[in-house]
Amino acid sequence: MPHRDRRDFLGTLSLAGLAGLAGSDTTTNASEAAGQDAAHTDVGKDVTRTIANYVVSGRYEDLPAGVRKEARRTLLNWMGCALGGSRHETLDAALAALAPFSGPPQATVLGRRERMDILHASLMNGISSHVFDFDDTHLKTVIHPAGPVVSALLALSEYRPMSGQAFLNAMVLGIEVECRIGNAVYPAHYDRGWHITGTAGVFGAAAASGRILGLSEQQMVWALGLAATQPVGLREMFGSMTKSFHPGRAAQNGLTAALLASRNFTSADTGIEGKSGWANVLSTTRAYAEITGNLGKTYEVLLNTYKPFACGIVIHPTIDACIQLRNAHQLTANQIERVDLRVHPLVLELTGKRTPQTGLESKFSVYFAAALAIVQGSAGMRDFSDQNARSPVIAGVRDRVTATVDPSIKEDQVRATITLTDGRKLETFIEHAVGSLERPMSDTDLEAKFMGLVDGVLAAPRARVLMDRCWKIDSLPDAAELARAAAVS
Amino acid sequence: MPHRDRRDFLGTLSLAGLAGLAGSDTTTNASEAAGQDAAHTDVGKDVTRTIANYVVSGRYEDLPAGVRKEARRTLLNWMGCALGGSRHETLDAALAALAPFSGPPQATVLGRRERMDILHASLMNGISSHVFDFDDTHLKTVIHPAGPVVSALLALSEYRPMSGQAFLNAMVLGIEVECRIGNAVYPAHYDRGWHITGTAGVFGAAAASGRILGLSEQQMVWALGLAATQPVGLREMFGSMTKSFHPGRAAQNGLTAALLASRNFTSADTGIEGKSGWANVLSTTRAYAEITGNLGKTYEVLLNTYKPFACGIVIHPTIDACIQLRNAHQLTANQIERVDLRVHPLVLELTGKRTPQTGLESKFSVYFAAALAIVQGSAGMRDFSDQNARSPVIAGVRDRVTATVDPSIKEDQVRATITLTDGRKLETFIEHAVGSLERPMSDTDLEAKFMGLVDGVLAAPRARVLMDRCWKIDSLPDAAELARAAAVS
Repeated sequence: MPHRDRRDFLGTLSLAGLAGLAGSDTTTNASEAAGQDAAHTDVGKDVTRTIANYVVSGRYEDLPAGVRKEARRTLLNWMGCALGGSRHETLDAALAALAPFSGPPQATVLGRRERMDILHASLMNGISSHVFDFDDTHLKTVIHPAGPVVSALLALSEYRPMSGQAFLNAMVLGIEVECRIGNAVYPAHYDRGWHITGTAGVFGAAAASGRILGLSEQQMVWALGLAATQPVGLREMFGSMTKSFHPGRAAQNGLTAALLASRNFTSADTGIEGKSGWANVLSTTRAYAEITGNLGKTYEVLLNTYKPFACGIVIHPTIDACIQLRNAHQLTANQIERVDLRVHPLVLELTGKRTPQTGLESKFSVYFAAALAIVQGSAGMRDFSDQNARSPVIAGVRDRVTATVDPSIKEDQVRATITLTDGRKLETFIEHAVGSLERPMSDTDLEAKFMGLVDGVLAAPRARVLMDRCWKIDSLPDAAELARAAAVS
Repeated sequence: MPHRDRRDFLGTLSLAGLAGLAGSDTTTNASEAAGQDAAHTDVGKDVTRTIANYVVSGRYEDLPAGVRKEARRTLLNWMGCALGGSRHETLDAALAALAPFSGPPQATVLGRRERMDILHASLMNGISSHVFDFDDTHLKTVIHPAGPVVSALLALSEYRPMSGQAFLNAMVLGIEVECRIGNAVYPAHYDRGWHITGTAGVFGAAAASGRILGLSEQQMVWALGLAATQPVGLREMFGSMTKSFHPGRAAQNGLTAALLASRNFTSADTGIEGKSGWANVLSTTRAYAEITGNLGKTYEVLLNTYKPFACGIVIHPTIDACIQLRNAHQLTANQIERVDLRVHPLVLELTGKRTPQTGLESKFSVYFAAALAIVQGSAGMRDFSDQNARSPVIAGVRDRVTATVDPSIKEDQVRATITLTDGRKLETFIEHAVGSLERPMSDTDLEAKFMGLVDGVLAAPRARVLMDRCWKIDSLPDAAELARAAAVS
């Protein structure tokens, strides 16, 4: 159904339904889940070769208009996140550690004066793009698809000339590969402790880079094998700088894999499905039809989503509700008597901090988030600041918020009631939070998010040039125009 | 028992006994092996911090003489293997692919004119050292310990000045870390499909590099976390160039981890033992006491072994037997009526090729290996050549070899009977093949192996200088003298 409008297509399906879209031919069964020996008997056929063939032959001309459109939205969102994250101390540390070993200044490190070789640049930009956890999300797998893929492509575009169409095509194919491989092993692989953005992302980076390098089918098979053998990312690292290292290193490893394969550095032919291949070793379940089914007919980028708020997705419905009520009734802090939320159980499990003291902690407090939304009317990267975490006005509202778990409330829902000092009760029910597949951010929303993120990194006129190039990438003769527009001099 | 002579110490113990040396406090149980959920309940205490503390505080002065000696033997053997492998097409491909992205020419690529930044140099030297699978083996875990550790250290020595004693100390500590972590998860981790040299090796490289960089305990904890999140190596890659990529990339990743940690790039505090840490995610069993027990009292480098023959270890007893009979009786090909071998079951499973046609294939033929040993009296890197694989003389003997599985024969044993055309029967039983822990290669054997490997790469006088520096590393004021002696101009 690639030619249908994205919203029509998604409007009729639940997320659970989407998860089953690509086919039910799963090779998982109870005895496999029970142990590794059984799992080893599970062998897919030509999985790596089939997806490699698709990547080396997929053409820009074959991409439906809606797919191209969504890829441009993904690109714009990623670019804003990477620029917005580029001044973070995580980047300072990574650059201080690794710059002495960089090769020639081939590629832009977004938002920084440094230029590095393409391998290091892909690492740095991948880190920047994830440092605020504000980048795109493929909700079916919780993969952040652009990080590994676009970080690699953007760097490569300054070394190996490619048109904007070639860039966009490689980007769609890379996202397709990583998300399909993710679909095949989610959730068992994630539950085991792997940060799937890094472990599946490396395939996406290898595929996208390899497409641009003009790999043969056999070379693409090797590139995917070299990707398989370099998975990045344990969930143990969440909460540290190393979390954002994962998409960056996945980009770098995938690009390395493609470069090696282009010189006939050989790997296995069955890196994904072999007995000791990626899927058997890194997951207890695998559904290979998710990788090889409906190639060229369905597109995972159509399932990509963008966060309107710079915090964990479970409190997005709450923020959405509070901003809506605030704006509809022009609320101010001193009007608030109390705020009552009925929330999904995960909300209190993940974001139950009552009195956060820092910007980082404030992202894990549904109470703070509700108050922030009412007081500021926004919840962007800069709103979750140390200053706001200590603001007496926000804290005053925060301490009037209660949250009650309600099993009838879904993950992207909330029921919010604001009682005012004059006795009025304002109530709203969010059926799908903004940013969900069912209520995606509009292009205008994405532009506003982008401009907010790049504020202070690029001057507004330059930011608009870059935004324009993202929207018009299909007509750029040289995709490196993107990186050039994003460079800081 | 660090002060006992190595041979005395090992002479009284079987390999099985050694495997249990470090303690029996295993946290594995049946319910864990059955599934991941159960495994997640298994949490070690301060494992990462304990080993980090050991690494940052372990001193050269504390190393027993036997440990220093074995480290020097490991170094010499590794250096020969890396130089011997340096002209292989695997290196040609890797250099062609990655040289355009190398940083400043900081470090030697062994056996090549190219110099590269230390990260790339560590990768290349790690590949070279494993390309013939002729490097050192920690038999308890089948880890090749030097590859990740020495590749990183050798590169670092040309960037960050260190004494020979500091080099040797860091090397011992790195080997200790990787082998102890390997001990904790072997064999379940390997059986699952991980190439343990890459997955455990990255810790060794991080530890050794971090020791030289002077990391604090907390920074070392982070370095080990950054290592944990970058495991390299699926066994699916065996038989391709990517197998030797694994120790190289482990060296590069471990060095990267230490460099990042030195700039306070943070990771988890529990990278090894955390719920979503390395041991829980990458293995179904784990015995943390193997990591934290008897630190500074036992040394894994004492369990390192060196291959006398350039092929899989399962046919070493056969080669050993045939060379002994040949030399004792001055045998020539035309005297051989038949050769009968009684072998361990793995021999035919892994090396049962009857008529190998290439040098690579010939490594997987016990029949060829027996004939080679009788005809040439050696089985070095150059003996497993395409020319020998097609030699009519060797093939003539090869076709007179039979091999029969005998369950009473252990892995490092063989019973060989050679029947001569004159009717005589010559028989020998190898109880422990040369190169095993019980019958280690002598220093003279190692020197001969080294000279054979570097022949054609370094001129003999220069080779002897390098060998001398390996033996005398403890007295080198600057460990970079090693790399300088190994450089090709």
